[in-house]
Amino acid sequence: MPASFLGSALRGTFFLAFGLWWSVRYPLKYLNRKGAVEGQPGRGRAELFEGAVKAFFALVGILVEQFVPSGPHLQLYSPKTHSWTDLTHWHYSTIYLFFLLSGITDVVSHSPLKLPPGLERLSLTLALLVEVSFANTGDAVLDQHLHSLLVMAIFAGALCAFLEVFLQDHIILETFRTSTFLLQGSWLWQIGFVLSPPWGGPGWDDSDSSNLLFLTMCFCWHYIGALVVVATNAVASRCFCPTLLELVTSKQTSQLGVSVFLLGCPFVCSRTA
Amino acid sequence: MPASFLGSALRGTFFLAFGLWWSVRYPLKYLNRKGAVEGQPGRGRAELFEGAVKAFFALVGILVEQFVPSGPHLQLYSPKTHSWTDLTHWHYSTIYLFFLLSGITDVVSHSPLKLPPGLERLSLTLALLVEVSFANTGDAVLDQHLHSLLVMAIFAGALCAFLEVFLQDHIILETFRTSTFLLQGSWLWQIGFVLSPPWGGPGWDDSDSSNLLFLTMCFCWHYIGALVVVATNAVASRCFCPTLLELVTSKQTSQLGVSVFLLGCPFVCSRTA
Amino acid sequence: MPASFLGSALRGTFFLAFGLWWSVRYPLKYLNRKGAVEGQPGRGRAELFEGAVKAFFALVGILVEQFVPSGPHLQLYSPKTHSWTDLTHWHYSTIYLFFLLSGITDVVSHSPLKLPPGLERLSLTLALLVEVSFANTGDAVLDQHLHSLLVMAIFAGALCAFLEVFLQDHIILETFRTSTFLLQGSWLWQIGFVLSPPWGGPGWDDSDSSNLLFLTMCFCWHYIGALVVVATNAVASRCFCPTLLELVTSKQTSQLGVSVFLLGCPFVCSRTA
Amino acid sequence: MPASFLGSALRGTFFLAFGLWWSVRYPLKYLNRKGAVEGQPGRGRAELFEGAVKAFFALVGILVEQFVPSGPHLQLYSPKTHSWTDLTHWHYSTIYLFFLLSGITDVVSHSPLKLPPGLERLSLTLALLVEVSFANTGDAVLDQHLHSLLVMAIFAGALCAFLEVFLQDHIILETFRTSTFLLQGSWLWQIGFVLSPPWGGPGWDDSDSSNLLFLTMCFCWHYIGALVVVATNAVASRCFCPTLLELVTSKQTSQLGVSVFLLGCPFVCSRTA
Repeated sequence: MPASFLGSALRGTFFLAFGLWWSVRYPLKYLNRKGAVEGQPGRGRAELFEGAVKAFFALVGILVEQFVPSGPHLQLYSPKTHSWTDLTHWHYSTIYLFFLLSGITDVVSHSPLKLPPGLERLSLTLALLVEVSFANTGDAVLDQHLHSLLVMAIFAGALCAFLEVFLQDHIILETFRTSTFLLQGSWLWQIGFVLSPPWGGPGWDDSDSSNLLFLTMCFCWHYIGALVVVATNAVASRCFCPTLLELVTSKQTSQLGVSVFLLGCPFVCSRTA
Repeated sequence: MPASFLGSALRGTFFLAFGLWWSVRYPLKYLNRKGAVEGQPGRGRAELFEGAVKAFFALVGILVEQFVPSGPHLQLYSPKTHSWTDLTHWHYSTIYLFFLLSGITDVVSHSPLKLPPGLERLSLTLALLVEVSFANTGDAVLDQHLHSLLVMAIFAGALCAFLEVFLQDHIILETFRTSTFLLQGSWLWQIGFVLSPPWGGPGWDDSDSSNLLFLTMCFCWHYIGALVVVATNAVASRCFCPTLLELVTSKQTSQLGVSVFLLGCPFVCSRTA
Repeated sequence: MPASFLGSALRGTFFLAFGLWWSVRYPLKYLNRKGAVEGQPGRGRAELFEGAVKAFFALVGILVEQFVPSGPHLQLYSPKTHSWTDLTHWHYSTIYLFFLLSGITDVVSHSPLKLPPGLERLSLTLALLVEVSFANTGDAVLDQHLHSLLVMAIFAGALCAFLEVFLQDHIILETFRTSTFLLQGSWLWQIGFVLSPPWGGPGWDDSDSSNLLFLTMCFCWHYIGALVVVATNAVASRCFCPTLLELVTSKQTSQLGVSVFLLGCPFVCSRTA
Repeated sequence: MPASFLGSALRGTFFLAFGLWWSVRYPLKYLNRKGAVEGQPGRGRAELFEGAVKAFFALVGILVEQFVPSGPHLQLYSPKTHSWTDLTHWHYSTIYLFFLLSGITDVVSHSPLKLPPGLERLSLTLALLVEVSFANTGDAVLDQHLHSLLVMAIFAGALCAFLEVFLQDHIILETFRTSTFLLQGSWLWQIGFVLSPPWGGPGWDDSDSSNLLFLTMCFCWHYIGALVVVATNAVASRCFCPTLLELVTSKQTSQLGVSVFLLGCPFVCSRTA
């Protein structure tokens, strides 16, 4: 999937950010629900904020993919060469489109319109499945191995989100989904380092089969790392619960999210056009 | 699966029609249930109508496949050539037979006979699984790719219908199934255009690998389109709820369905014989 | 799986007999439960009878496989030829052993010992999964195709039985399982006719690819047949409900089952030894 | 997976020990719950003990893999040969790390910290899935066949543990998981005997295809054996229920487990260093 280090790292950062955000928010929600501290209004606001940020970044991603100098500039078919133009850029735009849709569903679900509960999980499942369907397009052995491991992380997250359509607010599924997002994020960074190191030079040796074995193992270590982050944040959010709770569920946070979305769009448009 | 543009387009229209019908009916049913406007009698009638229409089209499909001039005319084995006659026509007849069965189950389920609830979903699952088992019979790379994408759409619908055996009247599953039917319908049209364009000439270039990538992407766009249709109809049905509700659940509609079925059969028989 | 017509037909008859028995028993149980005609004691007896018959036939199968003239007579390794003796016979014995276990679990579950409910479904799932693991050992294309279709029927039954561990007395799952057993039974007869016709001569032409297409279609027709049988018996059992109910749940029936098992064993032993 | 007889046998013994322990504990817990003999405090203690023992053995495994004379001694990359050092030892260490994590989750779950119920099952699922991901790395046909059968046993256990996240204290799932652990343990012994017999000499003949058939069958017999053990222990624990119940749920047992863990660690460290 990722062609360059920068693209891979940016995508990884997006998933890491969501994983880290969830690793704080879900334990708080869980504690909140157990303590029964009138959590209903606050919860909706945090998810509104989350959806707005997701939609904003997806929109930025689409615009960047389309309007970077080497991008297709919304042109799909080149009549000169009689071929499709820049299908890779279009691929990423399509994936981001589904994440944009997922973000919009999040926002609408927690607005006063009252969509049936669970719809925002289904749209997240769809976005992850679309991401899976594009992930296995590598040629080299190493590339394929790295992306098949990535597919596992994405697919675990999709399965989790699908189960959450039926089992809402299930803390274990939420924790598991958080860990798969952290894994996916850090693995995208790893893919960047392995295939196109930022200090230049070629990627790892494709012909050395021990690299495949090492990377399988490395994937497990990344997951251990993701679990450690999830556990640490859960413990931390337990200790600093009252202070954080106010911050996360405050009206300002959600207004910030919506305004980031509304203000950011014209800004990005003006830059990429 | 589809050999010619016309066959593919007709099948696609059938699935599109069902998808569009459901994209109106399910939101109404959901609103109706929430508003508790004595929905029980009306609901049975709409499903009776639906089953009758499904059975009618399946029966027409079987008769057309068997009695078109190039068809097998109910002859399975040709003693002259010592070979099976027109297995493709028989294949489609078999698929339609399962949809006929599904339609009959729908009708009987909502008659006063009181079958166990969920049986009509199981028969729909079976019809879709039979469709899947016949879909992967192409030879060329492009053909196989198009049909493997079709199989995904059908399979998602089958999984959904199977889950509905256990979770009845689950609005998210119903919405998801609706979107897979719309996707399947529009994708059958796409297959027709790619493999045998209606303006004559050969299909798309089989040797160009970028076509495969484009079609994967195109499949995602079809799904975006299907989701937009579902969302639009849901909003529309919310706005014009009272007017539509009367139409859909009226006694006349279901009587229309049953009479279409009863009157249509002899008419089709006389034409194809 | 089946080497000769006789073996295949006998195995098919076993599954057909169970399918037919269930196609009468489950609708009766369902009507009984709805009518609330003190069904609890009668139900246990029918399942005791069923388990005893299953265990009896499995035991007969093991003894026949071991002690037919060409069988291994419980000898596993031949020191003379330094090779395993008659692994095919041992394979079938292993499959029958799991069905014997399933029969014994049935009997014990409905005895006063009170095993946890659902255990007899798990043992049936295991028996079917063991049957699956042995089914794909053919060499020729036609043989493999026939057995991959058989695997579908067995696997659908296993999935159904596994779901029944959690959803007990679910009439739709029971009906579906019944239909897969009927399908498996009639398909074993079909396999016998295709691979080793009883009137001698070779089986069907392995090189003719249209045979494969025809057999896929034929499999669907077998399933239509199975569904028709299930529907007919359900209707019939509804009409003659009171008379049949007495017969099925009578004390004599279950005593018959247990005595068939106890008396039959020494009889079979003396014949095959 | 296992390179030598000793390693395979030790791993097998670990799984056998857990299977045997569970085959006694779960029936007792089930009887206890039905009899409602104030079981809540005792139950937590037994699981604390179990988690401590699991974590202890996993830690021992990691230390042994790292610090045996031929091990990597925590060195991952050898700058001299420019290659990874002893990836097989690192692989096993990674697997044991996940079992260590599962053991720690067990201990923490049943401490007064009150993790959400089901989390310890998820961590067991993860450990088994990591074991699966490393199991299929053989080259020879026989090796691959043996490990694909092992994967089935591990995967069945992982599926079971995953379902237990949602269905807690389900006696049938617990029994099934117990039987898959016994199967996995005895099959690891079998793998040791087949690939590297303890009396020296080469393993079984890789070119003889009847060995593959025999081993499939043998796998089924191992499972029959596992089921017999489970059944026997369930019956035995039923008969000697009061005596065993006291032993298993006594405060001493859990204190023993924790002290084994705390005392054993420095002991092992000093030996392997």
